[in-house]
Amino acid sequence: MQNEEVAKHLMDYWNTSMPFNQLLGLKITRFSAEQSEIRFVWQDKLIGNPMQKILHGGVTASALDLAGGTVAAANIIKQLSDITPQNIQKSISKLGTIDLRTDFLRPGRGDEFIVTAHIIRSGSKVAVARMEMHNEKGDHIAFGTGTYMVG
Amino acid sequence: MQNEEVAKHLMDYWNTSMPFNQLLGLKITRFSAEQSEIRFVWQDKLIGNPMQKILHGGVTASALDLAGGTVAAANIIKQLSDITPQNIQKSISKLGTIDLRTDFLRPGRGDEFIVTAHIIRSGSKVAVARMEMHNEKGDHIAFGTGTYMVG
Amino acid sequence: MQNEEVAKHLMDYWNTSMPFNQLLGLKITRFSAEQSEIRFVWQDKLIGNPMQKILHGGVTASALDLAGGTVAAANIIKQLSDITPQNIQKSISKLGTIDLRTDFLRPGRGDEFIVTAHIIRSGSKVAVARMEMHNEKGDHIAFGTGTYMVG
Amino acid sequence: MQNEEVAKHLMDYWNTSMPFNQLLGLKITRFSAEQSEIRFVWQDKLIGNPMQKILHGGVTASALDLAGGTVAAANIIKQLSDITPQNIQKSISKLGTIDLRTDFLRPGRGDEFIVTAHIIRSGSKVAVARMEMHNEKGDHIAFGTGTYMVG
Repeated sequence: MQNEEVAKHLMDYWNTSMPFNQLLGLKITRFSAEQSEIRFVWQDKLIGNPMQKILHGGVTASALDLAGGTVAAANIIKQLSDITPQNIQKSISKLGTIDLRTDFLRPGRGDEFIVTAHIIRSGSKVAVARMEMHNEKGDHIAFGTGTYMVG
Repeated sequence: MQNEEVAKHLMDYWNTSMPFNQLLGLKITRFSAEQSEIRFVWQDKLIGNPMQKILHGGVTASALDLAGGTVAAANIIKQLSDITPQNIQKSISKLGTIDLRTDFLRPGRGDEFIVTAHIIRSGSKVAVARMEMHNEKGDHIAFGTGTYMVG
Repeated sequence: MQNEEVAKHLMDYWNTSMPFNQLLGLKITRFSAEQSEIRFVWQDKLIGNPMQKILHGGVTASALDLAGGTVAAANIIKQLSDITPQNIQKSISKLGTIDLRTDFLRPGRGDEFIVTAHIIRSGSKVAVARMEMHNEKGDHIAFGTGTYMVG
Repeated sequence: MQNEEVAKHLMDYWNTSMPFNQLLGLKITRFSAEQSEIRFVWQDKLIGNPMQKILHGGVTASALDLAGGTVAAANIIKQLSDITPQNIQKSISKLGTIDLRTDFLRPGRGDEFIVTAHIIRSGSKVAVARMEMHNEKGDHIAFGTGTYMVG
């Protein structure tokens, strides 16, 4: 199995089988060890504050966490010497968020939101990712840093 | 209007009018400047990882953020010299999360989750809150620290 | 070798052989898996802002980091099945800070500063510690959360 | 007084009058609202772990905090409508770190260390800065995020 096939397979699986991501409409749109990407569109049910019509901070944190976890997963798979479904599943099952910092820069307004993530520390046990969230106009809405268990 | 009435009124409003909190089932069960509390029950739609049947990290972050915002709001109101609906609304409208750190300590498993929050830094412009999340058995699932704009 | 002997030995070594801790006057005063403690006294060279005569934030961060690392080290040793100097050194050599959050609650004023640390997440690879810094009057100056590589 | 003069004056003052920065050898080498910069050279007294000869994590945190505070100060001054020594001093006296996250990416080894900082959230009360520390070879040693009170 090639890396690209694996990426496509995992994207499909995660995009259709993770209940909370589906509830929020979070879609993995790039699964790559260099930079992964999540997108989601505005829905009224994601509103935190009904007076101001802005995203709940928890929506932002959820999207940042998923983006960081996705790029960490892509790095785990990239480092596998033998890419089999069993090895992938075994490796990915160890993935977990240890801690996550979210910096809310601007009110969460927009039609679509794009979160990108890249790895700033890569190791056999722990990886650290940085994430950014923009809306479709390019407004920078949030920054994040996540530490992930990877082995 | 007395502080207790205000607290009850705000709890009712927040518990029935905030779309994302309703989507997740987050309920404010104590609104107090000393310690505020949020509770929510397990629902399958809150699952992050379908293999392990544990809460999505974003659910945990959402509940911690709401708990910290609630205790920050209770502190804002406590410091008002003149408690009128107009003053309360004006003050609360300035409330916003600046940053949030979530520490995931154990897998998010349980029937009910209880999040408590208290203030560790209180100021006229910025407040800092600490949050803890346990399940109904007392397992300690997450810790959090949030910095909030309050004035 | 007993745990207490080991603790005493490591405290002595760390208190006399770590250049930056000596420069700042940081002393490990309790080395225990339950709660470790660091103390240091005011010195003018630790001033950050000469107008306000308060500790530099980096002094506070240094003390919190040391306290968290100490309690993480005590936990590593407690989990060793065979406590020999070689095993201790091998285990301790893996210890490193992954990330550290410092919350500055009040200006750093006082004659003596006491930092306590305890473990909130314990694992074979990663541990998370929480730290608090008070002055001799009990004023709460800072809070911290540190994630440590331990295996 | 022009912005550049002010910047030079503040750099000189901070570089010669802040005891802890002098103790560590931290020098502000660029004072600008776009990007500020701190540099310092290796000294044995900055060692945390004598076995591995690497910087103490507190040295890294100190340098990141100073860099973030410097870029926050430059932004405060840029926003002043009337740049007088009194106004500058009054504004700068309100500057303080609320919280700081440090991510340690690689062991702190090198001959010289360069820390850059830029603002990711700018406001009348609170600013958020991101910092990066490299050594003279370009190795990326640490990342940081700091939230500062600015008004």
